[in-house]
Formats: sequence, C-alpha cells, structure tokens
Amino acid sequence: MTQVAVVTFDGFNELDSFIAAAIINRCRKDGLAAYITTPTPTVTSMNGVEVTGQRPLDFVPEADVVLIGSGIKTRDVVADDTLLAALPLDPARQIIGSQCSGALVLARLGLLTDLPACTDATSRPWVEAAGVEVLDAPFHARGNIATAGGCMASTYLGAWTIARTLGAAAARSAIDYVAPVGEKQSTVDHVFSVLRTGDRVSVT
Amino acid sequence: MTQVAVVTFDGFNELDSFIAAAIINRCRKDGLAAYITTPTPTVTSMNGVEVTGQRPLDFVPEADVVLIGSGIKTRDVVADDTLLAALPLDPARQIIGSQCSGALVLARLGLLTDLPACTDATSRPWVEAAGVEVLDAPFHARGNIATAGGCMASTYLGAWTIARTLGAAAARSAIDYVAPVGEKQSTVDHVFSVLRTGDRVSVT
Repeated sequence: MTQVAVVTFDGFNELDSFIAAAIINRCRKDGLAAYITTPTPTVTSMNGVEVTGQRPLDFVPEADVVLIGSGIKTRDVVADDTLLAALPLDPARQIIGSQCSGALVLARLGLLTDLPACTDATSRPWVEAAGVEVLDAPFHARGNIATAGGCMASTYLGAWTIARTLGAAAARSAIDYVAPVGEKQSTVDHVFSVLRTGDRVSVT
Repeated sequence: MTQVAVVTFDGFNELDSFIAAAIINRCRKDGLAAYITTPTPTVTSMNGVEVTGQRPLDFVPEADVVLIGSGIKTRDVVADDTLLAALPLDPARQIIGSQCSGALVLARLGLLTDLPACTDATSRPWVEAAGVEVLDAPFHARGNIATAGGCMASTYLGAWTIARTLGAAAARSAIDYVAPVGEKQSTVDHVFSVLRTGDRVSVT
C-alpha cells in the first residue's frame, strides 16, 4: 500500500485537508491510501470541528507521500521548532505537497529554495517573506515537490498525487467520480490542463 | 445568527459534508454559520475519519437551513424509522438541501413528490425506486428545496445556501475566497451559471 500523510494541524481548513484526502482515498482499492495525520490525538478545525487523527506525526517518515494542509495557525506551526523537527521530509524518496499556508512549512523546512510556490492570498506575504517566489497560479510542481493555492486547488494536489503514484488513468478516474454530475468530462479536462501547466514533466 | 445543520451520518463522504459546511462558514462574520450535525456524539467517515458532531440531531428543528449529507450507509438511514423521525424537516419555514445519496432521505421524508432531483450515479437507482425523477444535472432547486449530485457539486449547494440566506453578493465573495488562485472569476462565473440553470427563480 502506498501511504499518504495529510498533515493536519490545529485550526485547520477543512477544504484543504479533506478534499485531497477524500479524492486520494477513491484509490484505496488500487493500493493508495491517505490518512489525516495530526500532531495531537485530536485537532479542531478553524470552524470548530473536532477530528481524531488517523495517524500521529510519527507516521510522516514512513509515508510515501506527505501533503501539508493549511489553517489559521500555520505561523504558530513554523515558529515551533519541536513541531518542525517532527517533519523530517525527504524529497529524494518522498513525494511532497503543500496546500495554501502549508507552503510556509515547506519554506521553513528549506524545501522551496530555488523553487517558486503557489499559496493563497493571505499566506502570500509570509511565504514571500520566507524568501520564496509566489506564483499567481493554482498549482506548481517540479520533481517531487508540489504546491497549490486557493482552497479548492486541493483537488489538483489530490489528482497530482494519484497521477504521480498510480498514473494518469487512475487520477482521471478519481476526478471523474467526484466531479459534479453532468460535468464529469469538463472537470477531468480542466484538472489535467492545470496539472500539465503546473508540472511540465510528470503529468501527461 | 442564521444556522445551518449539515446532517452527517456514520459512513459519511467527507467531500459532501465538509465542502458545503466550509464554504458556508466563510460567512460566519455575516451571521451565517454551519454545524456538522450528527445522530451520535461521533461519526466515522467512509474513509475512517472520526469526527465529533458540533450539534446533535435535536438541533435540526431549530435550524434555518438543513443540508443532508451523503455516505455509504444512507440506505440504512432511510430504513431507520427512529432516525427519520428525528428529521422533522419543514420546507415552509426551512431551506432544505441534499447532497448525492441525501436525496434518498428527502424522498423518504416525502419532500420530493412532484420535484425532480439530482443525485450521484450510485444512488440514482435507489432515488428512482423511491419514485423520484432524477436529472442528469449537478444541481436543481425549486422553492426551498435543492438537490445536488456528484461530490464536488456540494460547492453549488453551499453557494445556493448563502445566496438564499445572505444574497448573491455574499455567495460570490465566499466562492471567490475558496476558488483556486488564478481561477477566481472563472469559478464564480461557473458556479453562478449552474445556480441560475438549476434555480430559475431565486438566483440572479
């Protein structure tokens, strides 16, 4: 089983963690599974929804893919050296992605030197202050690292994760399933257009 | 405060409950709030995520808006008379919506007589067997009742809820916020195009 850690901090944005996780979990039957991965046994969303983590942060080093979610407390996360030390991401052997303010975590971990990033408008000044070039685009990837900006861009991060692990056909199938009725083909076409623009190498 | 119950059963689909709830909760500052509303203190999603309900089912009668989520156990829900009795929905004074298999709950409550509905492909035969005409469309509404089909159509249900309670400008603003970076205007335009097609009376 290829395992995906969707790292989810207290104050998290539900869209940012659950859209990617749910789309990826369409592929459990194909050997790809996402788990809400939390620093504490439970975390509470920015809208007060308490969620029990499916995996602790100890799971991160053994995950094949690590996606860093977003939320209203990411600046506290990147100020917490103990928390950052619990995220020993390795782009040589892991596929890594961030959603919105999650880019700040990747920046702080030194993963966005020489790589422009996508993030949301609120997080943009903080990501830029960390020395990272921010793109006016929803999704960008190079090699094993991807970033997405704007809550609903987590669809792209989920699709990219599937494309990179199981291949494009599996990603198309998952997006087709979750797309609105009557908009299946147009949604798949749009998602792949964004992936091809954002990742000129890996997604065909 | 205008209150929205996002009714979420065990085995729920995360996209179906959380996309609508999170979009609606962009409007908390404007007096509109959504709450994950559950029949038991905790529910576990179809992918094993345990969530603590924000409100019990007792909250349903006092909610201004009730959205019925979807999941893998909706057929058990509609076979459970006690559970159905705990959903005394009143379209005369409440705005009511369903996502995917949630249409089966509305059908069983007698709310879809003389009203066609949207649902997902898996639920479609069950909704049709309940005597409801199913549309090949992502979203349909008439009066106070809306149905949406395909996980990501929950965006439309969320936007419609905001448009019906706070007005179109608030709905545009919420969709603009959650849309991918670089796709803000096109996303807003698309969502409103779907709402206008699906609700010829209320959304302008």
